[in-house]
Amino acid sequence: NPEKKDNPPMYGLIGKMRAQPGQREALIAILLEGTAAMPGCLSYVIAKDKLDADALWITEAWDSQASHKASLALPSVQAAIAKGRPLIAGFGERFETEPVGGQGLASPR
Amino acid sequence: NPEKKDNPPMYGLIGKMRAQPGQREALIAILLEGTAAMPGCLSYVIAKDKLDADALWITEAWDSQASHKASLALPSVQAAIAKGRPLIAGFGERFETEPVGGQGLASPR
Repeated sequence: NPEKKDNPPMYGLIGKMRAQPGQREALIAILLEGTAAMPGCLSYVIAKDKLDADALWITEAWDSQASHKASLALPSVQAAIAKGRPLIAGFGERFETEPVGGQGLASPR
Repeated sequence: NPEKKDNPPMYGLIGKMRAQPGQREALIAILLEGTAAMPGCLSYVIAKDKLDADALWITEAWDSQASHKASLALPSVQAAIAKGRPLIAGFGERFETEPVGGQGLASPR
């Protein structure tokens, strides 16, 4: 697949996170703040689960898996992880994907 | 919550779809074509599942549930549903969400 040679496949994640009871809003605020400017991030959507008042979903699309990995070392992300960890009660489903296109990808290919 | 009075909550969907064996690429092409111009659609990302070669994920964010509902009547979406249905083997997990923010929301609030 010649196309793969020049630009790597996009990388995506779909994951569920449960906040400590009553802490979802605070956790969302921390996540929004910490994930605002991440190089290579094409999409990062934070959403409340409709059924579980403590749960939230994060769906991500990156221009490469390397960009995602590098983001974990960003000061803003490290700060969000440190600030957010005490508010996290647990993690639910987690799916790794390869985005291939759609609407709302910051620099769609 | 006064904010809700003027603009309704965003509406989101996370869903898994299985194509008939060997039909994922064709199904992706149909979906990409049919979902290009949907009013109120803030994000619509199509992604391959990393483990199951026939499965794909669609993660959506809409400015309201009404916009999502209306999109199902769009000629382009109706055509995609008709063309795509024979290529669909089944549906997997499906989660309804309320997006609250992030990156890559076409007109973030």
